[in-house]
Amino acid sequence: MNNFTFYTPTKYLFGRGVETKAGELARQFLGQKIMIVYGHGSVVRSGLLSRVTASLAEAGVSWTELGGVDPNPTDTLVYKGIEEGRKENIDGVLAVGGGSAIDTAKAIALGIPYNGDFWDFYAGRLVPEKALPVGTVLTIPAAGSEGSGNSVITRLDGLHKISLRTESVLRPKFSLLNPELTFTLPPYQTASGIADMMAHIFERYFTMTPGVEITDRVSEGILRAIIEEAPKVMKDPEDYDARANIMWSGTLAHNGVCGTGRREDWVSHFMEHEISAVYGVTHGAGLAVIIPAWMTFMADHNPGKVAQMARRVFDVNSHDDRTAAVEGISCLKAFFGSLGLPVTFAGLGIESPDIPLLVKKLHENKGDIIGGYYPLTATETEQIYRLAL
Amino acid sequence: MNNFTFYTPTKYLFGRGVETKAGELARQFLGQKIMIVYGHGSVVRSGLLSRVTASLAEAGVSWTELGGVDPNPTDTLVYKGIEEGRKENIDGVLAVGGGSAIDTAKAIALGIPYNGDFWDFYAGRLVPEKALPVGTVLTIPAAGSEGSGNSVITRLDGLHKISLRTESVLRPKFSLLNPELTFTLPPYQTASGIADMMAHIFERYFTMTPGVEITDRVSEGILRAIIEEAPKVMKDPEDYDARANIMWSGTLAHNGVCGTGRREDWVSHFMEHEISAVYGVTHGAGLAVIIPAWMTFMADHNPGKVAQMARRVFDVNSHDDRTAAVEGISCLKAFFGSLGLPVTFAGLGIESPDIPLLVKKLHENKGDIIGGYYPLTATETEQIYRLAL
Repeated sequence: MNNFTFYTPTKYLFGRGVETKAGELARQFLGQKIMIVYGHGSVVRSGLLSRVTASLAEAGVSWTELGGVDPNPTDTLVYKGIEEGRKENIDGVLAVGGGSAIDTAKAIALGIPYNGDFWDFYAGRLVPEKALPVGTVLTIPAAGSEGSGNSVITRLDGLHKISLRTESVLRPKFSLLNPELTFTLPPYQTASGIADMMAHIFERYFTMTPGVEITDRVSEGILRAIIEEAPKVMKDPEDYDARANIMWSGTLAHNGVCGTGRREDWVSHFMEHEISAVYGVTHGAGLAVIIPAWMTFMADHNPGKVAQMARRVFDVNSHDDRTAAVEGISCLKAFFGSLGLPVTFAGLGIESPDIPLLVKKLHENKGDIIGGYYPLTATETEQIYRLAL
Repeated sequence: MNNFTFYTPTKYLFGRGVETKAGELARQFLGQKIMIVYGHGSVVRSGLLSRVTASLAEAGVSWTELGGVDPNPTDTLVYKGIEEGRKENIDGVLAVGGGSAIDTAKAIALGIPYNGDFWDFYAGRLVPEKALPVGTVLTIPAAGSEGSGNSVITRLDGLHKISLRTESVLRPKFSLLNPELTFTLPPYQTASGIADMMAHIFERYFTMTPGVEITDRVSEGILRAIIEEAPKVMKDPEDYDARANIMWSGTLAHNGVCGTGRREDWVSHFMEHEISAVYGVTHGAGLAVIIPAWMTFMADHNPGKVAQMARRVFDVNSHDDRTAAVEGISCLKAFFGSLGLPVTFAGLGIESPDIPLLVKKLHENKGDIIGGYYPLTATETEQIYRLAL
C-alpha cells in the first residue's frame, strides 16, 4: 500500500427535502452573496430552483443566477461566470444540477480570486491553492463532482477536455443530495450516470500497487450495490430506495475512498474525453463503450485484476485469469446493454470514428505513454479504440 | 433508506513516517500551545513521542504532556487534564496512542471550554456544541476514534462506562496513521482491535431499515478485508501491507460510512461496556464474547441480516435463514478463536460473572428496552449474557 492523504471535508445532507437546507448551509459555508449555476432550465421547470432560492432568501443570502451550462461544459460560460461573479462581488458559488453545473461552478470559484486565465490551472501551468467556497444541490448521480476535488472543462478552442484534480481546494463545502430529484431523469441519462460512477471505481481499482485489499473490497462492494440497484431504477424510476442507493454510490465512487493507497489508472476516462470532446456524446455512454474495450485489451496483456473483478463482482468461477477476465467483460457488456447503453462506437451513433485523430489528441493532451495499470503507447491506445468498433 | 448527514472533515495522513508531520498539522489545526495525551510510556520507550515532539518543536508549537491514560480510560485523568490544560492555556489536544488516549483527549478538549462538569455531556444532560481541536497519532487500530466523533469514558464512581456520540464536534481535525507503529503490538491486543473494528461494522450492519444495499455492501467489503488480512498480521506482525489494511479498515469501520442511511444497533457495545467497566477486560476481547452470543439469540428471533452476513462475508450457502445464520456464527467464532480471542466469559477469565448486576447496570445506563435491530428487554439481555457462558 502506498502512503496517502485522505481529506473529504464535504458536509453531505442526504434524503428527502434536503434542498430546503440550502440557505442555512450557504450562509454558513459560502457567504452573504452567492452565484447559482445551473443548466438549461429543467431545475427551473421542476420548481427546484424556486425551493432553493426561497431557502436562500429565508436565510438572508442574496444571489445572482448563471444558467446555460451545457453537458461537457466549456470554458466560454466559465469566463462569463468569472466576469459576472467579480462584478457582483460574490462570496461563493452554488451549483444546482449535475456534474456539468458543479464543474462549471468549481472553475468559476477558482477563477475569480486568480489574476489571470483560469485555464492556467487546467493546462497544468499552475497548482490551485485557493478558490471561493462551492456548494451543490445534486440532480444527476454520475460525475461524483459533489464529493470530489475535481473539475472537467472543455476548451472550445481545439476541443481539449481536461480534468483538473485537487486534493481539497475544489471539494464542495456541502452537498445536498435528495434522491427524489432524480426521479425524472430520462432512462438514458440514468444509465449513463451509472456507467460513469462504475468507471470512477474501475479507474481506481485497476492498479499494480500490491497490498490494497481494503480498497479493493470497498470498491467491489460499491460495484455490486450499483449492479443490484440499477435494474430497479430502470424499471421503476420512482423507486426511492433504489435511487438513493445509486445516488450515494455515485458519491462514494468518486470521493477518493476507492483510491486510497494506490496508483490509479484513468486511461478509459482520458480516451472517452477525446470522444465526447470531438463527437459531443454523453460521457457515461462513451465510457460504456471504452471500458469493455480497455478491459478486452487487458485480458490479453495484464488480466489479473480484470479476473479478480470478474470473480468478486460478477461471481465468475474460472480459475484461468484470461478466461475469467473475458467472462467478466461479457457480464459487464450484458449489464450495460440491459440498461440500454451502447458498447460500441456504432451504438454511440458514430459509424466511422476518426480514430487517428482521437489517438493524436489523446497523446497530445496526456503524453506519449499513459496509464497506471498497464502503460499504453499510441499504437496500443489505437488498438483499444479499434476494439470499440 | 433514512435521511442522513455525513460529515467527516478529518484530514488523514496515512503511511510510513507520517508522524513527522505532527508539527505542521498541529500548527495548522490545533494552535500554538497544545497538550499531548498518552498512556503508560510505550510511546516514550519506542521513541515515537520524541519524534512527535521534535516535529512540534520544528514547527514552533509548544506543548505540555499528560501521560498515564489507562485502558478503559476514566474520568479521573480527564479532570486532571482539564485542570492542567486550563492552567497552561492550551489551544488544542494531541493524542498519541490508541482509543483510550484519543477518547481522553476528546473529553479534555470538550471540558476545557465548558464552565461545568464535563460529565454533563456523557450523562446526556447537555449536547456538545464546542470543543478545543483534537489531533491524533494512532498506535492501535481498534477503537476507530481517530476518525469518529465519539468518546467513551468510564466514571469511576459507579463504574459507568458511557459512549458520547457527536456528529462532528469531537471529530479529530487530523489523524496520522503509520502502520509501522503497530508492528510491536502484542498479539492479543492486535486481535482485540480486530474484534473491535468488526464490531463497529456489525453494530451498524444489523438494522431493520430497508433499502440500504450500498451501506451493506461497503460494510461487507470491509469485513471481508479484515478477515483476509487478520491472519497475516497474526502470523507476521511486521507485514506492512497487512498492518496497513487492518489500520485503514479500523478507521473506515467507525467513521460513519457503514452507518449511512439507517438506524444502528449498538447493543453488543452496551453489553460489553458493562463487562469491561466491572471486570476491566479488554474491550475488543469482551466484544468477541458478546457478539456471537447476541447473534445466536438473533438466529432464533430475527435471523435475516445474520444470514445475509453469513452468506456474503463467510460464503455460507444454506437457503434457510436460521441455518445460514448459525453457520455464519460458527465461522465467526472460529475466526475469533484463530486469532486467540475468547468467545465465552470463561475465556475472558471470568468464571462466574454476576449477570444480574450486568443486566441491572446495562438497563440503568441505557433504558428498559435497547437495540435497533431487535428491541431487547432485561429478560432478553440476560439470555444473551447467559449464551456467552
